Amino acid sequence: MSDAKPLELHHERLFPADSASRDLARALYARVADAAIISPHGHTDPAWFAEDTPFKDALSLLVLPDHYLVRMLYSRGVALNELGVCPPGELPEVTPREGWRCFARHYYLFRGTPSRLWLDSTFAEVFGIDRVLDEQSADHYFDHIQACLAEPGFRPRALLDRFNIDFIATTEHALDSLTHHQTLTSAGLSGRVTTTFRPDDVLDPDVSGFADNIERLGEMTGEAVDGFQPYLQALRRRRADFRALGATATDHGPPSPMTACLSTAVAQTLFDKCRRGAASGLERAQFRGHMLTEMARMSLDDGLVMQIHPGSRRNHNSWLFDKFGPDMGADIPMRVDYCDSLQPLLNAVGNEPGLELIVFTLDESNYTRELAPLAGHYPALRLGPPWWFHDSPEGMLRFRRATTETAGFYNTAGFNDDTRAFFSIPARHDMARRIDARFLAEWVVEGRISESDAQDLIQELTTGLVTEAYRLDKRPSGQFARAAG
Amino acid sequence: MSDAKPLELHHERLFPADSASRDLARALYARVADAAIISPHGHTDPAWFAEDTPFKDALSLLVLPDHYLVRMLYSRGVALNELGVCPPGELPEVTPREGWRCFARHYYLFRGTPSRLWLDSTFAEVFGIDRVLDEQSADHYFDHIQACLAEPGFRPRALLDRFNIDFIATTEHALDSLTHHQTLTSAGLSGRVTTTFRPDDVLDPDVSGFADNIERLGEMTGEAVDGFQPYLQALRRRRADFRALGATATDHGPPSPMTACLSTAVAQTLFDKCRRGAASGLERAQFRGHMLTEMARMSLDDGLVMQIHPGSRRNHNSWLFDKFGPDMGADIPMRVDYCDSLQPLLNAVGNEPGLELIVFTLDESNYTRELAPLAGHYPALRLGPPWWFHDSPEGMLRFRRATTETAGFYNTAGFNDDTRAFFSIPARHDMARRIDARFLAEWVVEGRISESDAQDLIQELTTGLVTEAYRLDKRPSGQFARAAG
Amino acid sequence: MSDAKPLELHHERLFPADSASRDLARALYARVADAAIISPHGHTDPAWFAEDTPFKDALSLLVLPDHYLVRMLYSRGVALNELGVCPPGELPEVTPREGWRCFARHYYLFRGTPSRLWLDSTFAEVFGIDRVLDEQSADHYFDHIQACLAEPGFRPRALLDRFNIDFIATTEHALDSLTHHQTLTSAGLSGRVTTTFRPDDVLDPDVSGFADNIERLGEMTGEAVDGFQPYLQALRRRRADFRALGATATDHGPPSPMTACLSTAVAQTLFDKCRRGAASGLERAQFRGHMLTEMARMSLDDGLVMQIHPGSRRNHNSWLFDKFGPDMGADIPMRVDYCDSLQPLLNAVGNEPGLELIVFTLDESNYTRELAPLAGHYPALRLGPPWWFHDSPEGMLRFRRATTETAGFYNTAGFNDDTRAFFSIPARHDMARRIDARFLAEWVVEGRISESDAQDLIQELTTGLVTEAYRLDKRPSGQFARAAG
Repeated sequence: MSDAKPLELHHERLFPADSASRDLARALYARVADAAIISPHGHTDPAWFAEDTPFKDALSLLVLPDHYLVRMLYSRGVALNELGVCPPGELPEVTPREGWRCFARHYYLFRGTPSRLWLDSTFAEVFGIDRVLDEQSADHYFDHIQACLAEPGFRPRALLDRFNIDFIATTEHALDSLTHHQTLTSAGLSGRVTTTFRPDDVLDPDVSGFADNIERLGEMTGEAVDGFQPYLQALRRRRADFRALGATATDHGPPSPMTACLSTAVAQTLFDKCRRGAASGLERAQFRGHMLTEMARMSLDDGLVMQIHPGSRRNHNSWLFDKFGPDMGADIPMRVDYCDSLQPLLNAVGNEPGLELIVFTLDESNYTRELAPLAGHYPALRLGPPWWFHDSPEGMLRFRRATTETAGFYNTAGFNDDTRAFFSIPARHDMARRIDARFLAEWVVEGRISESDAQDLIQELTTGLVTEAYRLDKRPSGQFARAAG
Repeated sequence: MSDAKPLELHHERLFPADSASRDLARALYARVADAAIISPHGHTDPAWFAEDTPFKDALSLLVLPDHYLVRMLYSRGVALNELGVCPPGELPEVTPREGWRCFARHYYLFRGTPSRLWLDSTFAEVFGIDRVLDEQSADHYFDHIQACLAEPGFRPRALLDRFNIDFIATTEHALDSLTHHQTLTSAGLSGRVTTTFRPDDVLDPDVSGFADNIERLGEMTGEAVDGFQPYLQALRRRRADFRALGATATDHGPPSPMTACLSTAVAQTLFDKCRRGAASGLERAQFRGHMLTEMARMSLDDGLVMQIHPGSRRNHNSWLFDKFGPDMGADIPMRVDYCDSLQPLLNAVGNEPGLELIVFTLDESNYTRELAPLAGHYPALRLGPPWWFHDSPEGMLRFRRATTETAGFYNTAGFNDDTRAFFSIPARHDMARRIDARFLAEWVVEGRISESDAQDLIQELTTGLVTEAYRLDKRPSGQFARAAG
Repeated sequence: MSDAKPLELHHERLFPADSASRDLARALYARVADAAIISPHGHTDPAWFAEDTPFKDALSLLVLPDHYLVRMLYSRGVALNELGVCPPGELPEVTPREGWRCFARHYYLFRGTPSRLWLDSTFAEVFGIDRVLDEQSADHYFDHIQACLAEPGFRPRALLDRFNIDFIATTEHALDSLTHHQTLTSAGLSGRVTTTFRPDDVLDPDVSGFADNIERLGEMTGEAVDGFQPYLQALRRRRADFRALGATATDHGPPSPMTACLSTAVAQTLFDKCRRGAASGLERAQFRGHMLTEMARMSLDDGLVMQIHPGSRRNHNSWLFDKFGPDMGADIPMRVDYCDSLQPLLNAVGNEPGLELIVFTLDESNYTRELAPLAGHYPALRLGPPWWFHDSPEGMLRFRRATTETAGFYNTAGFNDDTRAFFSIPARHDMARRIDARFLAEWVVEGRISESDAQDLIQELTTGLVTEAYRLDKRPSGQFARAAG
């Protein structure tokens, strides 16, 4: 086809324009380009790795589960049914091929977005495609990807090797059966594919079914959860269950970073009211905030790294939520405060060097004002990498430029991809490495760090800090376990 | 005069320093440098085009109506009377020439501001002046401009041609007589110079004279506005009046983006209280917020594009307002929220691809946190270009860098100049085109978009998106009407 | 030692990467590189200059008083006692040399921070050291600095000359005895080392001991401070005391920029309640806010320049504060508002060109939204330079990029170092000059200002604006006094 546009990845993509900076960025990047991937926070499905069955087709693999893509198409008037998105329990109105064609026809909408960069990398480097995706090439893409997915080399475990993933954490709620991770443990993979303890379902009174969830927690742990102390004990047991399967971290997604440090008597009272559905909005928020402090205390005891991802107004679009459910790309960040919000927790445990508390933000106005000063003071606190909408070239550059001068590099936690899009993981880590190399190169050329420091730092930002922050060097194996080939 | 400083416009102004990026920016800019101007939102006076009388003098044309200039001079201690600014109903204390000299003497204060770039462009390219404005050249400027303004080629309609303006919208309040636009329609110019429906005077209970305005609205539309439904009907009629004269859009300037979606019964009650002056501050805000939702519903019916320009604390300086009135450069932006504020309206009509809702901001902290995620999800929503204080090189770059990765290019609405400074319009559009070319060039050189995509995008950002967003291709003529020469 | 890393300052540090911009930055910098230092706001100890005794050792001179350093070390788990920090009244657990070794061992933590740039400059240019500080070179550093400090050339007054400091202001609270400044006045140095009136101790009801402080104020001024008017009179007298010793400015550090303009009757009532400890939180804030307006009125009378440094949550870490006291690096910025907060004060005195009010911020989200528009309108208002965490290369660039287009260069106040780290003052001013030169060079290359304007502006940003804003050309001597050699 003579007018097919070639798909060519720019070898020096994301590097600075200036040649001195670019040369140095290239050299720094080369030091880590092939480093193994460490992915300590994400949302891949453990069933993939436990069952190792082939992926189905391009649409269900690459488009439908990716709310970055669905929301953008929807925002420009693409009807969800044309894409093959359907309400739970219903059947799609189009075939996967038809949905893929719709995606291809609108692929131009992603110009300038990180999704475009990740997808083009995936198309070229994972699938070996050499044409740009558009209406003309849609069928070629669909067929070629279909053929690839049928090959053994495109099964999940094989891709773990091909993608050079040394460690990947999934995320499970407190009440998850953990079946897949048990399978992975039996297969000797628990040091490589690991769960993360995400207990919002049993900590946040605003979660639907909270009281029932507490009951279920009691059943799973054999604790009669009839009071606050047994509730804490049940949580400790559940954390131990996750640790037994290799978990090194917990994760928390409260709407705001508000924390509290209540007396046991008050906590007991709120616990009772929350279970009975009798707590006010403020009381529910206080309970949720207090439980973050309790989680931090438990982390001090059991060594699990604690992550907080606050600040998203979930399911902003009521009509969409009622029809299609959550995770449709309608979660909107909101303004949050960290200075006052984190103070109760930090006053309780922030001076403990034995605690690793990694905080993320969707509100970048806090980088210089609150987060970098907090991380640059409290021993327990680190800044997580730019999250979600900010996991992008500009987002990463804003993060480094805003936080480094106050918090330094060493109060950060390396990169994590936070994704359910498994095939994009190599591209995402590659983007982070390129941007870090670029950032360091620019600062060397501007005489702000020495070249030898930059050589150390690119290693730290790629491997050192994430290993330290998530305590991966303290895992039982002491080594990154590799799946049998 | 041997020490006169030459006024030389830098041919590559606003392009990036790096030569590869600059070369590409130059090439992209060349594709749109001569494109016709489309100005879908602004504040020029329709009387100029209806009556086509000559402009008076440099001071009253270029300085006095421009609050960007007056405020800056005032901020550095220039007394307003020395400039020729006087309270309403009083006579100026200085002649236009004396006021102009005062301006020239302080022209250095504008170094680094967009006003300086616009004015220098206007001086050089519209008036053909080749010396920098300062105390020495003040009289030369005044005389030269005076001579120009006496020429036929400097009359408003001739300038529409000379400036290559294909479309320009003025802004009139709901109670405006629209006389000038009727004249323009009779002259066959309504497809080129058009009004915009700006109904704050009859929607915002905090506007002085609100109840009287409602009465007047009733009289103008023949509706007995004694209840909420007739009030809505009167608004529909007024919108139809504007549409009949070519309007393609409405504009709304509430203090905050707060919206509401009330029951008809509650809206009726608030309407009555607001008219009687019996509504509380919160009730007035709720009514104002609900009326935004009603306007959005009417836009769905009649196809007018809806613009919201929120977040300015008007008339911050009480003494100045009491003495000189509004629009003296004392409007100060304030922190606003979009996530929660827009939710009621968006939940009512945000899923309608048939609605065009263009939102602006003076609070840039919302770009990445709220506005790009909202625009990157809701079909009805687009982001307006950087507004007012942010209509500047840095402001435009911040906008693109902050919004593109999440909202893409296609959820934006092109450029608009939003100005009453008619002579600056070519310079303002030129600045936007240069900055867009620069931004795209930088991203091509950094491997973030392809060069062929950038070639498409510079057309989209200059002409395509503004035409689509303001539905200018749907105007009755189907073509841009040109005034008879 | 063969593996010692050389300490080499990059001669073109902080300049842009692009060669055209860099060449111009170098040329602009050269115009001011050797200009005398004017330091109108800071926290050096007047005893140094009054007594002129030698400094003790590297640790107590360079590390212990610098909360930027202590907080960063603490944040990465360094125990304070290992550094030689101890609670008030206790003795350090380590020798100065041991504390210094601990600092040296962790010096890598400062990579990329302004502290690192300032320290490396100090080591190389003040002490002539040519090796990087690390564990191996720690003793060499300690011994070499010790030897230097014993030399006459390293005494405080000699360093004033060597550092080319023409003017430096310290900061004293209202109840300070001013002994050292009296000594300096006797020595003919009051035009060169001057105090600043910082009356938070007698204006802010939340300061511990507020009522006692008022009593003491009465005693010091001979006013029976039994009512609001005598209290104002006592403040006027105290301001006169400071002015008599050369003060040109006041400084105010309220938690928020909230101001108020109350009637005298209300102010009297609040004054009484605050003294009795009977005022609510809101009443205390209103009183504090009103006193800012009173201070502005007094500044109009006596000509003292007024500075406001708001927005820090002091002593965020309760445990640390209880054990070690204030100024341990645990002050965290918080979100503040200027638009509404400053309105009462600005409506009272903001239109007075005879007032110099310099406002600072730790919340950069206000730069474009509120501060630049306010400074670009009110005659009394100027923007102070980037403060504290923002006194850094990125912070300065963000400030210029965010404020210049709206406020211009001429509503700013030059640079000030705001430091107690005397030895870092040359490096801090040098950093500001390099960044200003860089910023101007970039804008010249981008055609946004002319080269001849940039040549004027680098002088203004270095010397002109600070002299004008702090009225240093109006000091009695009319000249910068130089200490006898």
